[in-house]
Amino acid sequence: MQSVQNTGTHYDALMMREQRTTLFFSVREKIGALDECLHALKAANVSMTRIESRPSKSVVPGYDFFVDIDAQTKEVVQKVIEEIKKVDIVRDVRYVSSLEALKTAVSSTEQVPWFPRKLSDLDTFAEKVLEMGEELSSDHPGAQDPVYRQRRLEIVQKAKAYRTGQPLPRIEYTQEEKDTWKQVYTRLHAMYPKYACREFLHVFPLLEQNCAYGPNEIPQIEDISNFLKDCTGFTLRPVMGLLTPRDFLNSLAFRVFHSTQYIRHHSNPYYTPEPDCCHELLGHVPLFADPNFAELAQEIGLASLGASDEDIEKLATIFWFTAEFGLCREETHIRAYGAGLLSSFGELEYALSESPEKRSFDPSMTALQKYPITEYQPVYFVADSFRDATSKLREFNMTMKRPFQVRYNPYTQAVEVLDSKDKIQHFARSISSEMQLLAGALESI
Amino acid sequence: MQSVQNTGTHYDALMMREQRTTLFFSVREKIGALDECLHALKAANVSMTRIESRPSKSVVPGYDFFVDIDAQTKEVVQKVIEEIKKVDIVRDVRYVSSLEALKTAVSSTEQVPWFPRKLSDLDTFAEKVLEMGEELSSDHPGAQDPVYRQRRLEIVQKAKAYRTGQPLPRIEYTQEEKDTWKQVYTRLHAMYPKYACREFLHVFPLLEQNCAYGPNEIPQIEDISNFLKDCTGFTLRPVMGLLTPRDFLNSLAFRVFHSTQYIRHHSNPYYTPEPDCCHELLGHVPLFADPNFAELAQEIGLASLGASDEDIEKLATIFWFTAEFGLCREETHIRAYGAGLLSSFGELEYALSESPEKRSFDPSMTALQKYPITEYQPVYFVADSFRDATSKLREFNMTMKRPFQVRYNPYTQAVEVLDSKDKIQHFARSISSEMQLLAGALESI
Amino acid sequence: MQSVQNTGTHYDALMMREQRTTLFFSVREKIGALDECLHALKAANVSMTRIESRPSKSVVPGYDFFVDIDAQTKEVVQKVIEEIKKVDIVRDVRYVSSLEALKTAVSSTEQVPWFPRKLSDLDTFAEKVLEMGEELSSDHPGAQDPVYRQRRLEIVQKAKAYRTGQPLPRIEYTQEEKDTWKQVYTRLHAMYPKYACREFLHVFPLLEQNCAYGPNEIPQIEDISNFLKDCTGFTLRPVMGLLTPRDFLNSLAFRVFHSTQYIRHHSNPYYTPEPDCCHELLGHVPLFADPNFAELAQEIGLASLGASDEDIEKLATIFWFTAEFGLCREETHIRAYGAGLLSSFGELEYALSESPEKRSFDPSMTALQKYPITEYQPVYFVADSFRDATSKLREFNMTMKRPFQVRYNPYTQAVEVLDSKDKIQHFARSISSEMQLLAGALESI
Amino acid sequence: MQSVQNTGTHYDALMMREQRTTLFFSVREKIGALDECLHALKAANVSMTRIESRPSKSVVPGYDFFVDIDAQTKEVVQKVIEEIKKVDIVRDVRYVSSLEALKTAVSSTEQVPWFPRKLSDLDTFAEKVLEMGEELSSDHPGAQDPVYRQRRLEIVQKAKAYRTGQPLPRIEYTQEEKDTWKQVYTRLHAMYPKYACREFLHVFPLLEQNCAYGPNEIPQIEDISNFLKDCTGFTLRPVMGLLTPRDFLNSLAFRVFHSTQYIRHHSNPYYTPEPDCCHELLGHVPLFADPNFAELAQEIGLASLGASDEDIEKLATIFWFTAEFGLCREETHIRAYGAGLLSSFGELEYALSESPEKRSFDPSMTALQKYPITEYQPVYFVADSFRDATSKLREFNMTMKRPFQVRYNPYTQAVEVLDSKDKIQHFARSISSEMQLLAGALESI
Repeated sequence: MQSVQNTGTHYDALMMREQRTTLFFSVREKIGALDECLHALKAANVSMTRIESRPSKSVVPGYDFFVDIDAQTKEVVQKVIEEIKKVDIVRDVRYVSSLEALKTAVSSTEQVPWFPRKLSDLDTFAEKVLEMGEELSSDHPGAQDPVYRQRRLEIVQKAKAYRTGQPLPRIEYTQEEKDTWKQVYTRLHAMYPKYACREFLHVFPLLEQNCAYGPNEIPQIEDISNFLKDCTGFTLRPVMGLLTPRDFLNSLAFRVFHSTQYIRHHSNPYYTPEPDCCHELLGHVPLFADPNFAELAQEIGLASLGASDEDIEKLATIFWFTAEFGLCREETHIRAYGAGLLSSFGELEYALSESPEKRSFDPSMTALQKYPITEYQPVYFVADSFRDATSKLREFNMTMKRPFQVRYNPYTQAVEVLDSKDKIQHFARSISSEMQLLAGALESI
Repeated sequence: MQSVQNTGTHYDALMMREQRTTLFFSVREKIGALDECLHALKAANVSMTRIESRPSKSVVPGYDFFVDIDAQTKEVVQKVIEEIKKVDIVRDVRYVSSLEALKTAVSSTEQVPWFPRKLSDLDTFAEKVLEMGEELSSDHPGAQDPVYRQRRLEIVQKAKAYRTGQPLPRIEYTQEEKDTWKQVYTRLHAMYPKYACREFLHVFPLLEQNCAYGPNEIPQIEDISNFLKDCTGFTLRPVMGLLTPRDFLNSLAFRVFHSTQYIRHHSNPYYTPEPDCCHELLGHVPLFADPNFAELAQEIGLASLGASDEDIEKLATIFWFTAEFGLCREETHIRAYGAGLLSSFGELEYALSESPEKRSFDPSMTALQKYPITEYQPVYFVADSFRDATSKLREFNMTMKRPFQVRYNPYTQAVEVLDSKDKIQHFARSISSEMQLLAGALESI
Repeated sequence: MQSVQNTGTHYDALMMREQRTTLFFSVREKIGALDECLHALKAANVSMTRIESRPSKSVVPGYDFFVDIDAQTKEVVQKVIEEIKKVDIVRDVRYVSSLEALKTAVSSTEQVPWFPRKLSDLDTFAEKVLEMGEELSSDHPGAQDPVYRQRRLEIVQKAKAYRTGQPLPRIEYTQEEKDTWKQVYTRLHAMYPKYACREFLHVFPLLEQNCAYGPNEIPQIEDISNFLKDCTGFTLRPVMGLLTPRDFLNSLAFRVFHSTQYIRHHSNPYYTPEPDCCHELLGHVPLFADPNFAELAQEIGLASLGASDEDIEKLATIFWFTAEFGLCREETHIRAYGAGLLSSFGELEYALSESPEKRSFDPSMTALQKYPITEYQPVYFVADSFRDATSKLREFNMTMKRPFQVRYNPYTQAVEVLDSKDKIQHFARSISSEMQLLAGALESI
Repeated sequence: MQSVQNTGTHYDALMMREQRTTLFFSVREKIGALDECLHALKAANVSMTRIESRPSKSVVPGYDFFVDIDAQTKEVVQKVIEEIKKVDIVRDVRYVSSLEALKTAVSSTEQVPWFPRKLSDLDTFAEKVLEMGEELSSDHPGAQDPVYRQRRLEIVQKAKAYRTGQPLPRIEYTQEEKDTWKQVYTRLHAMYPKYACREFLHVFPLLEQNCAYGPNEIPQIEDISNFLKDCTGFTLRPVMGLLTPRDFLNSLAFRVFHSTQYIRHHSNPYYTPEPDCCHELLGHVPLFADPNFAELAQEIGLASLGASDEDIEKLATIFWFTAEFGLCREETHIRAYGAGLLSSFGELEYALSESPEKRSFDPSMTALQKYPITEYQPVYFVADSFRDATSKLREFNMTMKRPFQVRYNPYTQAVEVLDSKDKIQHFARSISSEMQLLAGALESI
């Protein structure tokens, strides 16, 4: 997603069509606790599309509830909340709403911006995306082409319908689309040996062999996602268009990357004002197969969970200057690893020429750097290595104002907020046992 | 799976019908490396059903290859291996065969018993299971009932066909089956408050609410697996019958539990000579939702990867005296957490009476304890807590003879052997960054 | 010190001659805090021999006070405590008294038995030792020899006068004493190659070269202490006779070993009913130069700080079966590392013969084993290695009832109780930075 | 020591009077190994003032030798080295010489600049210091005062004679000296509440109460060193004058600070061109009592061990802008913690005014900043906290070119080079057991 920078522009125009609200609350363990809660929910007499209960991660021992409400108005949600609060063992009611009015109404009780806790929470993002097929900006080369617009609509409908756990949509691309791809692919492919970073070049042949990368076919994100999963645990999700920067970054915490499936307009194969599958598949995908880059990307994602708007902007800027336009040092050369470069032959050449300024990647500086989004960058940041960049980023993240730390649990595909003694104890034990294993492994070699 | 103890009895009678062999090899990075290998594989002129290449986890930088061969004879496999070895950058050819003759023929090059590296490697286990529907032992209550045998065959065919990533098979249970379930469920359910451990009782209401546990329906493993995944990352896989102890334990390393879906014979609802869905769903499932028990089970699994036959026997014994027949201390009481107890009202009551001997769980002792498999246990082992048991087990595992340590990477769902400097460095960095996070989290609370 | 087992026998007869009490209290930071406290102490109008203030380790930010009172009666101490408690910023008054009556009187406020916090706190132990020169038990070979008793008195006076930081007393041994040493040394020295463990044999030549070990001279503890300090940080302190088991074990937490300087009676060079310099220098000293054994010994010491009387007895038993009578495995042999064996040629031979029972060292079992103190042991415990024994001991220590954990800070030579968020944070940061260094070191090699 | 910046100026004029050389070598364990080496040393027929052997820290199992030679010529040293190399089990001969010619002659075998390994190795620094009493630079206010020069000579003779382990020299200051102190003390003391950082102000009253700080007496470094030892483990050593930057920084790795004992010339109490006791005791000492600052200082020291000349210069610059002229943030204020500021009322006021530039402390930038040494600084660097500065410094140190990592063992007061598998294993085990303790402590609170 090249579009991380658009902090809210298109987003302001957002029209929400579904009015789903997710309620989250915890209860202390007690005999009959679950039944009491169910009873309270029913008492509200409201249409609920999901009621899930799980062992609590915040009240120990206790239970967590996740409830989806088909709520048309703020009053409806309030009613449910009131019923729930009558249950004396209930703790900590939070909610997520796609209904902005509601959010404002209740947000006084919320200290921290909402963020996804479970992988399936990413499903709520889809509702907040401007559907690009319908509303192409006037400067888009396909804006005046009704066939192109119709085709995009078809593709993004699949993205819109997608839910966690389903097979990823496969697109049967037209010959015209394939031709566009071929032109982009061929030209960039020839440049990579000279300009792309070592990790990119290492992975690319694997994509050719395992995911049908090549000039003649547009690869399917399902194949790519399976491949990435084996490499680093990253997976792809289809997306309709521009996510908000917060949503986009949040998903990286789950090692999930939102990828468009449509392609730029055939009239101008070397230009697109927004991310398309050429940008995602050629620019972004190869790096997500590298363990160290995967860690860097996830680190940005983790820092974005519940971050203030101000910090989201800093992190989006860091994403811009790394995953989109990042350069890195390799012995005596500088190479590109940013997707915005690796999917744009013009800027790729320019960025590695003498012309633009190059500075060392330093998150506290980089986060404040202004940048243009419609022309070549005047300044690039050079990382010593992905590991080094990650390490610096972690230091930087510690300076943020967020009053808690989070970790991602890849077993449960859920985010854990390290805000209680119990969770920190559990984390400490986990590190302790890993450390024991490391010491054992050192004996063995 | 109550059947872990059967080290090889039924297994000896095993008839293998599929003749699949999996080859695994690594190559150093080189321009054109992947093509050279493909070329060599083709030169062997043999039918191959899968060729996968990935960034190498053992040769850095390099690539790993996974190749499935439909091989009828040892000669065929040898031919492929010879071709591959001609490629000068190839390192470290290993293979897995379901063809026992082959295994013997080539095993001299293998220092360590084969073990699964990726989640999908568990697919090979299915081929090595005795199909219980066809070959019920003569003392089985259903052995003489052709209808019952036919029904089991139907159910296990689904298990046999199952492959990693597919939706879990759902069974439409007959009324007769549901009646059997109801009798077992009702009687055991009444006993749990008095006998079952705290963790079991905490989870059980969640299973009622989320997975349709109750007297009237047999829950579906798909629903349960999704629930467990959210709790601890454990998932279920259908299984046709008895796995070898090695295969069964190995799968625990991936937080995978093999569960039967058929039910005992209706003629005797309180008896079964082998695991059935009553045993799995009532005995085993609740505990897998507990994070500490999940860790204990996985720890046994990790120790079993590549272990000697002797160590597998010890670990199977430990599994027996924990996950199957384990007791634990709760303040002044002793409670049951073993599935063999929690699915058998007779032994449950007996085990917690004064009659049998109870000793403290101590892996080095427990691993050597003999046990009967057709009658109540004369000795039970009592854990102080799952955490304590896990910690002791880790100490015990360090005394095993296996010349390497392994860790499970839940992102890639793959096992990493910590046998090179590079992998240990990576692990150390990972612990270091977790430790940094822990220190940060301690500041925040 | 072979005498750890005497839980209180001689100790009951203890006569205290000095009546020193140490008060410890903390105050919150405030302008003028230190002056207020000084003022309060003066108001009590009592003779104080030391007033020390330090940055607080328990109230952050704050100060700790250590005050020594020459107190003849409990009333005097009470008076000081009352005055101090008037200062409103004072927290957490504790005291140490050599006056037993006093201890009883005030101990109701103390949850946990007193233990030394700073190296210099070990100075208080000297007052609680039975002076063996004056009160040899009737079965002692020197009990009827007034010259021998006078000589011992001379030597222990130096131990009595010793205070932390002073040069260790050097003894000019008589020819008769040297002859006794020579007989013991010569006979044992010949046995070591066959019976002593690898670590002992590695260190012994260093003691010959650096500390004048040999048949003709009795080595000086000052030289030995300097040598041990370089090897593992252990140091020796002179002692008059039997410490209480608690005091003796507590000192190991500081890597301090109390060593007698007198020698057994010349009439029977191969027998002593109590520790003497032959036992200490030949039996104990060499092992304290081994880093792994040093860690094991300190671990026992750390567990003993503030432990209940019952746990002290367990730890003393563990010390008995390790540092005094421990055996260890070396490839196919068993060797001795316990000082009680390595300083007794009779039991050394016996212990490694077929006669006595040998069990694997397992702290939870070992801690409960009864043992005779005046004859050869019927049971010995065999450690796999010092590291393994330490690891098991740590697990065992976690099961003790002490409501806090401690660590030793070798920079400040002080014990830190990990009982506040602040201290645990600091500890976590310290581990984190070590982990960062380890990861860095792994990159470098 | 304000003088860290003088990279070699006075040092070039250095006249060495003692010609001591220290040889260091390791041997593999073998029966009779120690005797063989002694024999070889005797064969060289050279005067040796110390021969120490210890369990080896680099060849395991093995021994380390430390030998001091009174060598007048390079030939003598060569002879000893040749004899030693004849012993076939000898590994890794290194030497330290105060004889510069010699150093050059043999240094080709040395990859890494020599650095102290043991606390007592700091004794060699004394010989390389210009004796300031004799050679005051012409601009020194006391340069023309023969009485002052004679007095300094008296004081530095004590520093010159000092060796590790001895009591620190106490100086009986004259009334004139006390008057000078009083003027400086009084004026600065009045400024501290407004300008000094929190940590400084916390410790200062303790120095008044425990170390006789006050206007009327010049405190004794022995009392201060004992106090600091209790707080952070830092100790003081007397020094004759300017150490080389390398030696000065190296000593910080051992938590040792070199302090002058003489005082500036009475003619100008508010000026001194070099460090004196006012600068050390008022500027530096209070901070060394703070655990976080102590860690920062030691971190600089550890990075300097064996560093290249170029890196030493960077580290000396970092020391300049932290320990000498550092500022730090405290909520909304900026305060001073650098000794150069806290001992100079003029610059203290200036530095905290609006006049000079203030930048955030960032080691990679700070290390390259040029600075004047005879006038007020135009630029100061502001740390967020000592912890933060330490953390950043560690990251920075990892970028240095030194091909190994070191850690300090406070038990043995020795530096360990983490350059072998064995040492890294040991370190990993040590971290693992600390981590186990941390997890345990988290359970306890």
